[in-house]
Amino acid sequence: MSELRKDPVSGRWVITATRPQQKDVRDYLATRRGISGYCPFCEGSELETLSEVFAFRKPGTRPDTPGWRVRVIPNKYPLLSREQDCARTKTGKFLPLEKINGFGEHEIVVETPLHITTLHDLPPRQISIEDFEKVLLAYQKRIEKLKNDEHLKYVLIFRNNGYPAEFTVSHAHSQVIALPVVPKSIEEEIANAREYFKLHQRCLFCDLLKEELDSKQRIIYEGGQYVAFAPFASRFPFEVHIYPKQHRSGFTQVPRDDLWELATVLKMVLIKIIRLLENPPLNYVFHIGPLHPAGGVEEFYHWHIEIMPHAMPAQGLEWGGEIYLDPPAPETAAIFLRQLEVKI
Amino acid sequence: MSELRKDPVSGRWVITATRPQQKDVRDYLATRRGISGYCPFCEGSELETLSEVFAFRKPGTRPDTPGWRVRVIPNKYPLLSREQDCARTKTGKFLPLEKINGFGEHEIVVETPLHITTLHDLPPRQISIEDFEKVLLAYQKRIEKLKNDEHLKYVLIFRNNGYPAEFTVSHAHSQVIALPVVPKSIEEEIANAREYFKLHQRCLFCDLLKEELDSKQRIIYEGGQYVAFAPFASRFPFEVHIYPKQHRSGFTQVPRDDLWELATVLKMVLIKIIRLLENPPLNYVFHIGPLHPAGGVEEFYHWHIEIMPHAMPAQGLEWGGEIYLDPPAPETAAIFLRQLEVKI
Repeated sequence: MSELRKDPVSGRWVITATRPQQKDVRDYLATRRGISGYCPFCEGSELETLSEVFAFRKPGTRPDTPGWRVRVIPNKYPLLSREQDCARTKTGKFLPLEKINGFGEHEIVVETPLHITTLHDLPPRQISIEDFEKVLLAYQKRIEKLKNDEHLKYVLIFRNNGYPAEFTVSHAHSQVIALPVVPKSIEEEIANAREYFKLHQRCLFCDLLKEELDSKQRIIYEGGQYVAFAPFASRFPFEVHIYPKQHRSGFTQVPRDDLWELATVLKMVLIKIIRLLENPPLNYVFHIGPLHPAGGVEEFYHWHIEIMPHAMPAQGLEWGGEIYLDPPAPETAAIFLRQLEVKI
Repeated sequence: MSELRKDPVSGRWVITATRPQQKDVRDYLATRRGISGYCPFCEGSELETLSEVFAFRKPGTRPDTPGWRVRVIPNKYPLLSREQDCARTKTGKFLPLEKINGFGEHEIVVETPLHITTLHDLPPRQISIEDFEKVLLAYQKRIEKLKNDEHLKYVLIFRNNGYPAEFTVSHAHSQVIALPVVPKSIEEEIANAREYFKLHQRCLFCDLLKEELDSKQRIIYEGGQYVAFAPFASRFPFEVHIYPKQHRSGFTQVPRDDLWELATVLKMVLIKIIRLLENPPLNYVFHIGPLHPAGGVEEFYHWHIEIMPHAMPAQGLEWGGEIYLDPPAPETAAIFLRQLEVKI
């Protein structure tokens, strides 16, 4: 059982997950630190996971058997589930405390049949650009599928990489979480972009891209369809954003032909950061429009990817003030990242 | 040199600090991991720090000599400095990119003359409630002083505790950062509280406190003046907020007589969390109103303290969606925290 709860002070949504049942805090600490030593994501362990909902497989192989390259499975211990009721309710006698039962979907995209853990272990013969492209295609397929449920409002796609083993399954994977609400960070981007559009009749993100391409100092990569840059107000040292040049609010509208370049630049930037910062914990997160766009959001929202390395843990300044420290400056980070040569 | 930069997409302020000069990324990594083995905060090392701006000292002792209990010094490597110009400027040809030179103040509150690192090492004979009370008084004194500069808009007070040694000076201390802007997290709380006040003519925080006291399930402590509780939508497992019962927007208005109870409950909650979660990294942050309140903020903003343990590192869900995971539920966390008996 889990619940989505809205903090009345900040407006943030929180998933209050009570699974597995913890009788005391020892159980909580033990669960948190649990490492089984056994990997259910490897090829050959298909029956240890729930049935796959999507896979790229060799012709002639059956679902939930070996022979796949990328495999999407429901999380065995989901944060959210569509077996829950999706009604938004209010509790509280003195003020409204909003909550929703843990309605949603939580899927794992297993990115490779091999037990590979960190991306910099991946020479082209193990994980090729084609494989990376398949992962991106799998994201598109899942968003398209989940969009059919009108109660789902948003799909959050992200990858955690390089965290200590006790905090994440090590086998390379990303996560797809479908939510009955739009996350606060995306709501804010939408609100700011809407405001900007009202004032200027232009997309905030398109203008930002023009600015970056003109000033050049924070650019890490520019190709035919994509641009990677260190954002002007980076939250994290060596943070990198990847923007498509073509204005689109959603990721599923990206044509198949554009995914090759995206796979290339994403892999390249990840490898550069991992090399440069000696395998820091990092995430990438897809910022895409809501599943059911309304109010002209297609016009003013512009999908992109944010890559966030965590060479330093966030402390009071970040958690308390949402003020982030960024040494070295993004202009310097861009120089380091541009100059580093890597094989992808 | 540092700069405050505003991200045009999220509205977040970032401090882009380029000090110390880093010639390449090796310097950056080395700086980040630097541990000197020498503690400038200990009694007897007063001349190794900048001159104190405030201290509680034995009668007859001179500034910057031994004989103090709590000592406030400017940070030798400040994020911000009042030697900078405080003008807000806009760069950008295609869209406005706002920035302010690194104007502000960055002070360290050294909480004890002894080289004590974590709070659970502190039996009453070493750090008494009186000592803790002096730390709170020092915060008040510094806010009062910094308020005199009309260019400073906010004072962020926080403590980082239990981080690995390479990320923070170990000698017990907290930080006082005076900013030329109000942090986004506080702006949001103010905006939500203003909205609530408009609708109901009541303080959001006062109502929240009534709710918590009525439902009782998340209460950890209730005294004459203060209440500690696990918030309904906790961001972090075992997060605890301390609210004063008396409605006040600022911390400097709190009368001296109320600080003893605050010191007691703050120390008690910190020790409980540290014991229960086996010394996790944690922060506490004072959420107080702006330095120069305007627009009726005194009526609808209510100062409080947020204590955030980080038993799990934040990952993609948190950084990407601002959606936080909270197992066990705050109701369960409150039971654990209430039941644990500690000596303070």
